[in-house]
Amino acid sequence: MTISLRRARTIIRKALEKGREMELKPLSVVVLDAGGHVQAFEREDGAAPGRFPIAHGKAYGAVMLGMAGTAQMKRAEDQAYFMAAVNGVYGGQVIPVPGGVLVRDKKGTVIGAVGVTGDTSDNDAIAAMAGIDAVGLTGEI
Amino acid sequence: MTISLRRARTIIRKALEKGREMELKPLSVVVLDAGGHVQAFEREDGAAPGRFPIAHGKAYGAVMLGMAGTAQMKRAEDQAYFMAAVNGVYGGQVIPVPGGVLVRDKKGTVIGAVGVTGDTSDNDAIAAMAGIDAVGLTGEI
Amino acid sequence: MTISLRRARTIIRKALEKGREMELKPLSVVVLDAGGHVQAFEREDGAAPGRFPIAHGKAYGAVMLGMAGTAQMKRAEDQAYFMAAVNGVYGGQVIPVPGGVLVRDKKGTVIGAVGVTGDTSDNDAIAAMAGIDAVGLTGEI
Amino acid sequence: MTISLRRARTIIRKALEKGREMELKPLSVVVLDAGGHVQAFEREDGAAPGRFPIAHGKAYGAVMLGMAGTAQMKRAEDQAYFMAAVNGVYGGQVIPVPGGVLVRDKKGTVIGAVGVTGDTSDNDAIAAMAGIDAVGLTGEI
Repeated sequence: MTISLRRARTIIRKALEKGREMELKPLSVVVLDAGGHVQAFEREDGAAPGRFPIAHGKAYGAVMLGMAGTAQMKRAEDQAYFMAAVNGVYGGQVIPVPGGVLVRDKKGTVIGAVGVTGDTSDNDAIAAMAGIDAVGLTGEI
Repeated sequence: MTISLRRARTIIRKALEKGREMELKPLSVVVLDAGGHVQAFEREDGAAPGRFPIAHGKAYGAVMLGMAGTAQMKRAEDQAYFMAAVNGVYGGQVIPVPGGVLVRDKKGTVIGAVGVTGDTSDNDAIAAMAGIDAVGLTGEI
Repeated sequence: MTISLRRARTIIRKALEKGREMELKPLSVVVLDAGGHVQAFEREDGAAPGRFPIAHGKAYGAVMLGMAGTAQMKRAEDQAYFMAAVNGVYGGQVIPVPGGVLVRDKKGTVIGAVGVTGDTSDNDAIAAMAGIDAVGLTGEI
Repeated sequence: MTISLRRARTIIRKALEKGREMELKPLSVVVLDAGGHVQAFEREDGAAPGRFPIAHGKAYGAVMLGMAGTAQMKRAEDQAYFMAAVNGVYGGQVIPVPGGVLVRDKKGTVIGAVGVTGDTSDNDAIAAMAGIDAVGLTGEI
């Protein structure tokens, strides 16, 4: 199973809506597939230009390691050199903080990840979860 | 002036609609801003996983060089080593073929680029132009 | 659907058996999943040490582009600068010759790729197909 | 002397069996030769897609430095900048934690390394040792 483009669009819209409802700063949201490849992305007007690689990095690490942003952050805090080394083997593409949310289907299989950036990491994760909830999938922050 | 997210969405939708109308293979469409940074992207269901970097590479070269895909291709055919060297300085991120379309406002200023991939380069460019036309901007293939 | 480890093992064994039956040079065989990630690999005794990245590069380009080795080679011959640029966006990881074989399920969906290296490109592709046939999947050389 | 493919297969199978016996998460196991080059690899069903580079990074550092994962981790904890610099010269390919196990022959010569990832670093190392023991070689965690 994978995240269809239709569902990816809904995830992004609902995450952005949540951000506006919570009066967050402009958000950027990426949806990756189960192989860590980009399916859809949107950056709100007013967001800084470099937001794509940040959103991507949060979601990419989650898919590649099978570990959501919160767990990555804990590992980075406990063992900084380990997450630095992980970034080496993944080409420097991992941002190990909340806002990188694993997406699972009903059986618990990881089918992709959502990456949100723009506000605090915790608020980014809340916005991501709003998108994932809206399509009936399970998120792991 | 820049391409708003609202307009970027319309560009992508209309490009994808054009692809379906012409019965092209599944397309992927990126919109970059005037600085070459990703604003929005969608990959249709059934497209190969690696389509983001190809779409991005077509649009990125167009913005960074201020030269659309067709002109880049001509340059690559005339002087392959030049485009190879350009790719050196741009981190290997340029795909110099049609489907990378410059977007200009009414004064002729470049405000971004659209990159389309999935079918032949010429068809990719037609789909990109359909999106750009739909928002009243000027495309240069 | 994906290629299970059990099936990946059979693909590799049957490809190696085919190589021995045809008296090819020592082969190396990789199986990638639908996202281009390594699932299984074996290098026969006597093969050169650098065979993993070659096998990987054949299969990786096939998955990422959704285009098997033979079609990639044709494109490289027709438009060398295009395949060079594609390699730029994929981090230099693509080897565009036969021996990179797409694997499809019964519906025609790409579920991975097999990369074989060690003998001539054409013989490498024959060995890959023997492995894919053995598990009842469809290969595209 | 080197690790034959036959032995590499046994190492991988026995490491995976140990993982199942201990009820670990799905494991990925790589065997590298004395030059740090990939000989064989398997990723169990259910493991995250990005496990190859992690398994590889554990074993690669062990071979290249002649120092097993536990000693590398100690060095990273004592002198993080040193392991970061080592990663610079080795292209960012080293993961300095347990689960990267040196393999020695009866004379004590390093003939390769095994890298295991998927569970805790300590459990990964136990699984690697089970594989190495099964072929009568000596492991150094």
